[in-house]
Amino acid sequence: MMEKEKKQRTVATIHARSFSVSLDEVKLPSGRVTERIRVEHPDAAALVPILDDGRIIFIKQYRYSIHEETLEIPAGKIDPNEDPEACIRREFEEETGNTVKNLELLLKYVPAIGYSSEVLYIYKGTGIIQKGVPLSSDEISQVEILSFNEIRSYISTGIIKDGKTLIALYTLYSNCFEKDG
Amino acid sequence: MMEKEKKQRTVATIHARSFSVSLDEVKLPSGRVTERIRVEHPDAAALVPILDDGRIIFIKQYRYSIHEETLEIPAGKIDPNEDPEACIRREFEEETGNTVKNLELLLKYVPAIGYSSEVLYIYKGTGIIQKGVPLSSDEISQVEILSFNEIRSYISTGIIKDGKTLIALYTLYSNCFEKDG
Repeated sequence: MMEKEKKQRTVATIHARSFSVSLDEVKLPSGRVTERIRVEHPDAAALVPILDDGRIIFIKQYRYSIHEETLEIPAGKIDPNEDPEACIRREFEEETGNTVKNLELLLKYVPAIGYSSEVLYIYKGTGIIQKGVPLSSDEISQVEILSFNEIRSYISTGIIKDGKTLIALYTLYSNCFEKDG
Repeated sequence: MMEKEKKQRTVATIHARSFSVSLDEVKLPSGRVTERIRVEHPDAAALVPILDDGRIIFIKQYRYSIHEETLEIPAGKIDPNEDPEACIRREFEEETGNTVKNLELLLKYVPAIGYSSEVLYIYKGTGIIQKGVPLSSDEISQVEILSFNEIRSYISTGIIKDGKTLIALYTLYSNCFEKDG
């Protein structure tokens, strides 16, 4: 077992609606005291929604974190006591108005391991029924449906820059790490 | 151009040594006021260090964010006015004692777009010279050298769960999104 950093005290905390951020003083195994930011973030779920013709549904939205518009797969935070699959069905319907029949877990990972507890579940979704009207009135997003060639172009030019979207697409289209490989 | 969320005021801020976290009130295009956490994180760089025999150098370390040991590729925060390549050469030497000759940018992406400004540069590194003694006395990490089959096994069992490590490996081993593909 590797030696841990030991928490000494919490210096400051910010509480947002669905998560909190703390600054902790920790003692390193060397004895030195330093600080760690810890974002206590709920887990989240994302979906690669694949239409019957192979095209994929993306969300175009403004992101406050980087002050830019982005192209991302649909995703959202898991509510307390909510199942990741129930979460992504709900978020997908809220963001696009569509429903998804079949879900397959592609990957479960930690996006920002240096400072956040968030775990993200990414699903592949088929059997999409397009209804077309997002449910949430606050949505500042638009639906975009892209072909494989468009996706490849947006990745190579850096227009698709969101981590979960990139890792989902690479996981989906690569086969070298198949479990039965 | 998509309608932006407009910042109203900053409600609280935490300052850590190399970054800060703020809670902002923002006005949505719908008119509703809500809050956004924004981690003002420096950009970072990571490296897939590939030995001449094809094996890859990993770092085994304890992560305060998830209170677990992890297996990750070497990485670190870029210092002010530091070049991403200079950063990863420095971090790689600090963490492993080794040096890297050739760097190739694999990917540049935003790991936690929901709440952090961080941009991460991932390089492929060859021409590794193994010296074997990490420079930093605070390091709570161990070096692990893994074969492709070991990596594949650690991915499928979920032992490798760090986002940058997974996206780096998928980018490296998949060829479907090659720029000239």
